[in-house]
Amino acid sequence: MNNREHALQRFNAVRKQTISIAAPLSEEDQCVQAMADTSPIKWHLGHTTWFFETVILSRFEKNHQTYDPKFLYHFNSYYESLGPRQPRTQRGLVTRPSNAEVRNYRQAIDEQMQHWILNAPEATWQQAFAYFELGLNHEQQHQELMLTDLKFMLYQHPFEEIYVRREPQEYRTELPQLSWLKHEGGVEQFGHGGNQFCFDNETPNHARMIYPHQLASRLLTCGEYLEFIEDGGYRTPTHWLSDGWAQIQESQNQMPLYWRHSDQEGWQVFTLHGFQTLNLNEPVVHLNYYEACAYAAWAGTRLPTEFELELALQESECLATPLSKPGVLHPTMAQQHGKAIDQGFGACWQWSTSAYEAYPKFQPFSGAVAEYNGKFMVGQQVLRGSSFATPAGHARASYRNFFPPAAQWQFTGLRLAKD
Amino acid sequence: MNNREHALQRFNAVRKQTISIAAPLSEEDQCVQAMADTSPIKWHLGHTTWFFETVILSRFEKNHQTYDPKFLYHFNSYYESLGPRQPRTQRGLVTRPSNAEVRNYRQAIDEQMQHWILNAPEATWQQAFAYFELGLNHEQQHQELMLTDLKFMLYQHPFEEIYVRREPQEYRTELPQLSWLKHEGGVEQFGHGGNQFCFDNETPNHARMIYPHQLASRLLTCGEYLEFIEDGGYRTPTHWLSDGWAQIQESQNQMPLYWRHSDQEGWQVFTLHGFQTLNLNEPVVHLNYYEACAYAAWAGTRLPTEFELELALQESECLATPLSKPGVLHPTMAQQHGKAIDQGFGACWQWSTSAYEAYPKFQPFSGAVAEYNGKFMVGQQVLRGSSFATPAGHARASYRNFFPPAAQWQFTGLRLAKD
Amino acid sequence: MNNREHALQRFNAVRKQTISIAAPLSEEDQCVQAMADTSPIKWHLGHTTWFFETVILSRFEKNHQTYDPKFLYHFNSYYESLGPRQPRTQRGLVTRPSNAEVRNYRQAIDEQMQHWILNAPEATWQQAFAYFELGLNHEQQHQELMLTDLKFMLYQHPFEEIYVRREPQEYRTELPQLSWLKHEGGVEQFGHGGNQFCFDNETPNHARMIYPHQLASRLLTCGEYLEFIEDGGYRTPTHWLSDGWAQIQESQNQMPLYWRHSDQEGWQVFTLHGFQTLNLNEPVVHLNYYEACAYAAWAGTRLPTEFELELALQESECLATPLSKPGVLHPTMAQQHGKAIDQGFGACWQWSTSAYEAYPKFQPFSGAVAEYNGKFMVGQQVLRGSSFATPAGHARASYRNFFPPAAQWQFTGLRLAKD
Amino acid sequence: MNNREHALQRFNAVRKQTISIAAPLSEEDQCVQAMADTSPIKWHLGHTTWFFETVILSRFEKNHQTYDPKFLYHFNSYYESLGPRQPRTQRGLVTRPSNAEVRNYRQAIDEQMQHWILNAPEATWQQAFAYFELGLNHEQQHQELMLTDLKFMLYQHPFEEIYVRREPQEYRTELPQLSWLKHEGGVEQFGHGGNQFCFDNETPNHARMIYPHQLASRLLTCGEYLEFIEDGGYRTPTHWLSDGWAQIQESQNQMPLYWRHSDQEGWQVFTLHGFQTLNLNEPVVHLNYYEACAYAAWAGTRLPTEFELELALQESECLATPLSKPGVLHPTMAQQHGKAIDQGFGACWQWSTSAYEAYPKFQPFSGAVAEYNGKFMVGQQVLRGSSFATPAGHARASYRNFFPPAAQWQFTGLRLAKD
Repeated sequence: MNNREHALQRFNAVRKQTISIAAPLSEEDQCVQAMADTSPIKWHLGHTTWFFETVILSRFEKNHQTYDPKFLYHFNSYYESLGPRQPRTQRGLVTRPSNAEVRNYRQAIDEQMQHWILNAPEATWQQAFAYFELGLNHEQQHQELMLTDLKFMLYQHPFEEIYVRREPQEYRTELPQLSWLKHEGGVEQFGHGGNQFCFDNETPNHARMIYPHQLASRLLTCGEYLEFIEDGGYRTPTHWLSDGWAQIQESQNQMPLYWRHSDQEGWQVFTLHGFQTLNLNEPVVHLNYYEACAYAAWAGTRLPTEFELELALQESECLATPLSKPGVLHPTMAQQHGKAIDQGFGACWQWSTSAYEAYPKFQPFSGAVAEYNGKFMVGQQVLRGSSFATPAGHARASYRNFFPPAAQWQFTGLRLAKD
Repeated sequence: MNNREHALQRFNAVRKQTISIAAPLSEEDQCVQAMADTSPIKWHLGHTTWFFETVILSRFEKNHQTYDPKFLYHFNSYYESLGPRQPRTQRGLVTRPSNAEVRNYRQAIDEQMQHWILNAPEATWQQAFAYFELGLNHEQQHQELMLTDLKFMLYQHPFEEIYVRREPQEYRTELPQLSWLKHEGGVEQFGHGGNQFCFDNETPNHARMIYPHQLASRLLTCGEYLEFIEDGGYRTPTHWLSDGWAQIQESQNQMPLYWRHSDQEGWQVFTLHGFQTLNLNEPVVHLNYYEACAYAAWAGTRLPTEFELELALQESECLATPLSKPGVLHPTMAQQHGKAIDQGFGACWQWSTSAYEAYPKFQPFSGAVAEYNGKFMVGQQVLRGSSFATPAGHARASYRNFFPPAAQWQFTGLRLAKD
Repeated sequence: MNNREHALQRFNAVRKQTISIAAPLSEEDQCVQAMADTSPIKWHLGHTTWFFETVILSRFEKNHQTYDPKFLYHFNSYYESLGPRQPRTQRGLVTRPSNAEVRNYRQAIDEQMQHWILNAPEATWQQAFAYFELGLNHEQQHQELMLTDLKFMLYQHPFEEIYVRREPQEYRTELPQLSWLKHEGGVEQFGHGGNQFCFDNETPNHARMIYPHQLASRLLTCGEYLEFIEDGGYRTPTHWLSDGWAQIQESQNQMPLYWRHSDQEGWQVFTLHGFQTLNLNEPVVHLNYYEACAYAAWAGTRLPTEFELELALQESECLATPLSKPGVLHPTMAQQHGKAIDQGFGACWQWSTSAYEAYPKFQPFSGAVAEYNGKFMVGQQVLRGSSFATPAGHARASYRNFFPPAAQWQFTGLRLAKD
Repeated sequence: MNNREHALQRFNAVRKQTISIAAPLSEEDQCVQAMADTSPIKWHLGHTTWFFETVILSRFEKNHQTYDPKFLYHFNSYYESLGPRQPRTQRGLVTRPSNAEVRNYRQAIDEQMQHWILNAPEATWQQAFAYFELGLNHEQQHQELMLTDLKFMLYQHPFEEIYVRREPQEYRTELPQLSWLKHEGGVEQFGHGGNQFCFDNETPNHARMIYPHQLASRLLTCGEYLEFIEDGGYRTPTHWLSDGWAQIQESQNQMPLYWRHSDQEGWQVFTLHGFQTLNLNEPVVHLNYYEACAYAAWAGTRLPTEFELELALQESECLATPLSKPGVLHPTMAQQHGKAIDQGFGACWQWSTSAYEAYPKFQPFSGAVAEYNGKFMVGQQVLRGSSFATPAGHARASYRNFFPPAAQWQFTGLRLAKD
């Protein structure tokens, strides 16, 4: 199969997957913005389409006519160089275009893209290919965001709502043995090295000094985190970073997002399948950085650096099978086959103590997409690995996810380290 | 035609009118809450239905089964005695029930109500009739709120959106002559007196001392208000109430809500038909109380008391023909036929200097609906008259509308008075 | 004694009284602003002096040289026509001028005023006298505000601080009998009528229709209010105005400002003498309007209108002896000698259901002091009577105090009424 | 001179220096808190004293009696393990203890400390010495904070206020030549290595991989920063980090803190000596991290990492002479004698791109002071070097200062780097 046809198949698959994530939702579900950090599903559908129109068609397809100039305003996320845009926090106020109009937009751009992929002159294709690849990866990133955003949206409802019903299928709940993977320290190589696609923030490949350390062979479980809660973890300031304790005081949080407790029901957790009894042997998820650090302090351990995680993930890479259990849209311990560590990929993202900084000699993408990653390099922590919701091609050792320390609505968990 | 059949016809007409207001909107338009003071259209549809279910069916129809217990939570507005409810500011976060489910709810309750109206035992009917009447009037109040809320929602859009297209039909724009209606003062009678329905806050009928005063024969126009703006009205603190000036400083408002000015287009105003050139001879609308008072201070006049307005409206009552110009959903000077004053009803509400207080020996409605009006009797100003959007039966001299002084999104204008 | 000498004596007495209120405080106590609604004591000292300089000396003393142009900025409170000023909420940030410099300012203006009082040409004196009188009354109003502001400031301290130690002297604590003063209704005369000084908002004298009602012969007590608390008053929304309930939900208040309860100490109340055991037979004070209304609703009564209070006070006028118990800076039941009602004056201000509105044909003061009262006529409730901290000449039947409904730090209590 | 006497001399010198910083301020100046991030001078005086009482006397002097239990509450800054404390943002509300009482506290603890230093048993002395040393360094850190806090406090005044008058003495204003110090990269040693005192966050000494880079030989000047402003730097979003641009939009900042511009006066800058004409050849100071990064992006360079700065400072160390120009309390280019770079120490702190993280195998101080540095290791950026206000012993290559990226009131400037 030649390049173009393969590209077309990948394009179609990615675009279809986005639609399938939206499919279980009603029209109403798709147009609400549940908080400032999340976006309406309708917006995700439009924005990922806008990305292809703006980055590919308007630049590399000379006959391209702007689909609708208003959409350039509606669906620009944060690209200052691409003009004004609807304020992020007010995306949910915009009822027009309708969901149906956005779906029409997707279909129109899909058709133009499909034609372009097969018919662009070879020189154009070569020149544009990196942006095309970026467009696919960009849309896949939004696929995970759609799931985190819609989960938060459903959770706002006063009565329990579900995304999709869980299939009764059994899955593993025995607790894997915890062991510690030792590393002796030394100079190691980091960042993305090959010719495959990666984001700019994974480059350049470079050497770093690593210090002797040990890394937990598996993720932290709900049961382990519950011990911290029951030992008064949320009431003991000395476990917490100063900012974390301030946040706990203000939010009055006493447990992770999506957990609840009642005498009748015990501990429960809200999932994309609705509330379910807390499975003590599953990975704890929706921790923010403060909670992860407080747990580690209480346990006398620490979080790993992003590089300690990357080293271990370098040996786990090919084994990721995210979303491999259809019908289980929640982290499990099932991904246990890593050579070095279990659940490196495919369960939940793992917080690191590394702030999100540029690598030595970092160069952002060129052109409009220069804003893609670089301008967020302050006030965020790096997460490594991937979650059950991360598209398959994104599970790689050098991948750097990042969120502010207070963020809870992502699929974020914890793997411990120690010296 | 007997009582019951007449009641049924009225019921059907009111219920149908509500649906017809929602009809031009998309599903997406109907589920968004544009600010804390407004509600989603979907919520209005559900709430007015909930009112009939809660106040009539659940109390006076012994076979009634609650349609859906969740709806008791979703669609209670502010009745503390009727149990917990979705916080007002978070109505827009709730995507479920869907619009379609709310419409099904309306239809089901309509059918039960229709049956009940015709078949309730006479004693029940007599006992329940006042509540039935209240339910109709309550729903009509929401009809006007739906128009103010959806106007504000459409205005949030970054590009101009319209509710319904305006018919090209001509309407009067000559400025009626301004004259002053004199009153010599003395003891007069106020409040609702007859046997017709009225709200509790219009009662009891009572005598009051009135002082000599003069009342403007017509509403203030956009052209007159524009003079105030162009004379630096929004930059001169001594025209303003202290709270009003503080609000201007914070909001940086320089003109009424929905106005805009550009060199190309001049002065324009957003209407339910989209932006249109400001008609200088039309009534100014969407003033808040602070703006109304600042204008009056600048003009060396004052606002009327609610009783001065009521006296004049007592002679205008039967002439109201709200919404009489189909296709013109905006205040006009067309309602000029009052005996005492023009545009007393049918153009826009008129701010008074009277704070919203209880009348002597005021008794709220009994039962759950005791909360209907009484608990809002602080921090609000009374408005009199009615707007183009006020259902016909609501245009009466004793009617007391009320809003906080900063409110701008209602159809609120100004009739001047002087001593 | 001629007019001028009497005026001089009054001037000196008022000015001295202000200083004596500040005297028990340290330099540090005098320069802090404890919340946006209160002012530093230093600022009160400067502002009352600025008033005489600006309203008298700069206009009626031709040789007057501005003492310090900066003070015109620092000590203007809210007079927009007198130029820019330090934002009210930031008065506490200004450490310079120092307390000592402000005291020097007072002394310098005192000397200039003393000279002017005795030596101004008679025509000037006649022309300026009303402003001079206003200056004295203005300063006396600030004397009460100084006490309420410094009480709130001391209360912010983590450990108990006192203003002045209480003398051990006994005072009456038996509960006076409650009776109801009946009025048959009719047309009565209101507002200030004589030639004595009054504020503009007390005029003009005018007739009003009064409705049959009864007024409590004494103030509400702490013991009576405690019953409301213990009956779940703060947890029962149907007792409360809608705004009041919202405020309770946000503030989580469960009792009046300055009250506290512990198992060891029982109920205590913070006073200018520090915390003391709650005296159940003393007037309850520091209620806001919402609390007063909620109590009345719970008790099946209502608050009086300002006119019902004025009628009763017209017979109590001469009996007021505020601050008559040296060393007891807290409301007591001691003022029981009114002909019509007890504690009409001299214990605490009494909330009315009347919003603060202009009287018919109200004319504000002329000149700069036009802003004195009129621009606050929205969003406030009238209080009548006077408190233990109100200077003697201010205790009159027509006096209209006013505060926003949420205000708690004034000496505000409750006298019940019923139909 | 034996150890103890030397220690006593150092103790006395540090304590005296603190008092001398407060000396030019009035009592009023010393008790105000100008914003949440700053503290009253009175509080600094008490807190540094509390530190010696709590960390030394209460633990190592067996006869010690708590000076005043209330002071343990008032003057605890953020040590959760040492009990409750006055909320940081409300330190300015506490007028008691007075300044005089705090000075008495200082004197009493000084006397006890002086006695203890000379008389503590040798074993106790050995055990306590590290805490004693920490107490001195802690107080010196507060000396710089006092200057930044009081500068911000004086700046809040509506009229210009000064801390101390500047002596007319001339100082160098020629612009030093800019050259670039090259480093070839490789493994280098970082962190504190010797036996001298250092803070826990400077340890342990460890090797790191360094990459080829160049470092500016001098600080960025006001003139250079002005070019950025005049080129529209504050209006061009693509220069800015995303958080920085959001902060600019909200604050409407158009220049660094303390700068102002008028047609009459041109560019001026507020200093501890009042406003002065902007000296284009002096180091720019009071940049926050966002401004520093935006400048570097505009200039096509970058900020250095903290390790690149540390390497260069290792060669500059002994040459620091902070506060060496009495009467010039503002950064100058005078410190130009570093071997490797000029103004490494003694002018202003230099932002790095390094987030404030723990070094490998970092161990916090033991005991209560474990909270000293570690709990702030999120959301802050490291600054290196020292300012004109940094006490002499604090100017060392391994010193890690840290502030949130938005902080502007510290003496923070910029040294550029490039690859």
